[in-house]
Amino acid sequence: MSAPVSGWHPSGDEIRAARERIKPFVTATPLLRCDYLDRPGRRVFLKPENMQRTGSFKVRGAFNAMASLSPDEKAKGPITYSSGNHAQALVLAAREIGFTERGQAYPCTVFMPEDANPVKVERTKALGGEVIFAGRSTEDRKKAAHELAASSGRPVIPSYDDPRIICGQGTLGVEIMDQWMGMPSRTRRLGLVATPLGGGGLLGGTAAALRARGFGGRMVGVEPEAGNDTQQSLASGTRTEIPLPQTICDGLMSVIPGELTFPILQKSKVEVVSIGDAQVKSTAYWLLDVMKLLVEPSGAVAVAAWINGLIAESPEQSSDEILDVVLVLSGGNADPAAVASWKG
Amino acid sequence: MSAPVSGWHPSGDEIRAARERIKPFVTATPLLRCDYLDRPGRRVFLKPENMQRTGSFKVRGAFNAMASLSPDEKAKGPITYSSGNHAQALVLAAREIGFTERGQAYPCTVFMPEDANPVKVERTKALGGEVIFAGRSTEDRKKAAHELAASSGRPVIPSYDDPRIICGQGTLGVEIMDQWMGMPSRTRRLGLVATPLGGGGLLGGTAAALRARGFGGRMVGVEPEAGNDTQQSLASGTRTEIPLPQTICDGLMSVIPGELTFPILQKSKVEVVSIGDAQVKSTAYWLLDVMKLLVEPSGAVAVAAWINGLIAESPEQSSDEILDVVLVLSGGNADPAAVASWKG
Repeated sequence: MSAPVSGWHPSGDEIRAARERIKPFVTATPLLRCDYLDRPGRRVFLKPENMQRTGSFKVRGAFNAMASLSPDEKAKGPITYSSGNHAQALVLAAREIGFTERGQAYPCTVFMPEDANPVKVERTKALGGEVIFAGRSTEDRKKAAHELAASSGRPVIPSYDDPRIICGQGTLGVEIMDQWMGMPSRTRRLGLVATPLGGGGLLGGTAAALRARGFGGRMVGVEPEAGNDTQQSLASGTRTEIPLPQTICDGLMSVIPGELTFPILQKSKVEVVSIGDAQVKSTAYWLLDVMKLLVEPSGAVAVAAWINGLIAESPEQSSDEILDVVLVLSGGNADPAAVASWKG
Repeated sequence: MSAPVSGWHPSGDEIRAARERIKPFVTATPLLRCDYLDRPGRRVFLKPENMQRTGSFKVRGAFNAMASLSPDEKAKGPITYSSGNHAQALVLAAREIGFTERGQAYPCTVFMPEDANPVKVERTKALGGEVIFAGRSTEDRKKAAHELAASSGRPVIPSYDDPRIICGQGTLGVEIMDQWMGMPSRTRRLGLVATPLGGGGLLGGTAAALRARGFGGRMVGVEPEAGNDTQQSLASGTRTEIPLPQTICDGLMSVIPGELTFPILQKSKVEVVSIGDAQVKSTAYWLLDVMKLLVEPSGAVAVAAWINGLIAESPEQSSDEILDVVLVLSGGNADPAAVASWKG
């Protein structure tokens, strides 16, 4: 199940199995009512994965992938290439599952670019990860990772285009639905769920999970304007590559939708909108100042799109019915001083 | 019930009634597991009232007091004297209960010092409050508020030494107990609950509520070192006045425990510890950087005391039993840039 299988679509059962697998390790982040963001006929909830372990949703996929390895693969330890949240998440998963299963961490090797953010390098090492620097492009790192894998027999766990990762991220959809169903004050219908969109692992997994649960509302992904590869690809019906985007959303800099994730997004009937960096910055400041939540730029795009009216319907579209809206905050690994400087 | 009644102790029934009264208006903030703060034999939860409406727990008491007024008192509108979170909370309560009951806000007048923080003045006005500046000391403001009350027949709602306020803040204790009881992963016993301590409304109400529910664990209040009036008073057994403290914890600058709150704290068998400003600052930065939560200095004292080992027991004290600990974050109304600058 580790090599991309074109045409694979995550089933409700697969995602539920992932959820059981990762339950002992990940935080069930709360579903927070946010009445400041309500609009006529729409009540808003936030799903703050910035408060997740390691500060992002990435632990969901990482723990699921790690727990899915064979005993031999675990003992040898996984390899990945990432300069961001996936690296820390996988190192934590190797450590924690190792502690649980044999009383000491499983090894984990991360290939990072030579110009990687020193804070992220430090945090990855602090969790016990081995960091190897390799070139500056994603291709450089990917190549180096697969060379080591070929010579060592160790498994590579990429950051999104992998069934284990997609199912792990999909646990977010199950959790949202369970929490929303359990709200005493919920309305009759969940109308819209929006998530940030980079490679498509989070959106694809969440959409597949929600659709499998019978969710008939709108499923929206939000990309940075400069990096709207999926928006373009959905419009043209085929995976479209774009130049490396310049954007403050460093977690959403994908240049082409994943081989696995793209058909999942198509089949799940997602909509995609894009948002500018200026709006993202002011939204991140607003989330800090008013909601008291530190959210990284990539993590704030869904709220930014909502605040700026890019995904709101007119209330007339559903007459008298009040619908609930869930906006996912995907991560919080930002420099507090930077976010605090984005006061409008 | 509006004038201080010496010897009054809030009953479980009074606090439950307050909870029903305020339920439509306040946020049930989540109980968050925080494994970073665990110690051997102790598992930590945070109660983030920084995410409460207006950014602090003060809305609990304010909504309860406002809802307890007679129709005539409501229509005339309450008066208070406060430069901090209580002012915004009471103005919101007057507005929201007014909207619910008659389709427009009830008036609310707040006496503030001439040197009040302009941001707090602005936010109080933005919620619809009338702000009147009166002198610089609490006594000046209190005198002016009571003069207006005498001439107008309007009720004064102080910030802590009032049964309606104490019962309202006590709803936090009921909520903590209910949420903890509902946790699938809870341990058998709640061992310790700690809150910030200024005038004693939050600690007194919460302690009374928890004791009424049979809570036999440790109940701890945390004061700033420079403003430890309650610590001194409990040690001497009598309310002791101290000079106006110099501390970064601007919400905890009480100079003497309340007439009503002090006997409640005594009867509830609370312990009090104090913490220095330097530890408070580094804790606020840690909460922002790691937990992604913006917490004001006054709101961070309980976590600061825990991190610095001031309220931790040795695990030996309870042999093999693992106990749960709840630390209350009471508010988040801080300047993000200031907190972000407190990196150690």
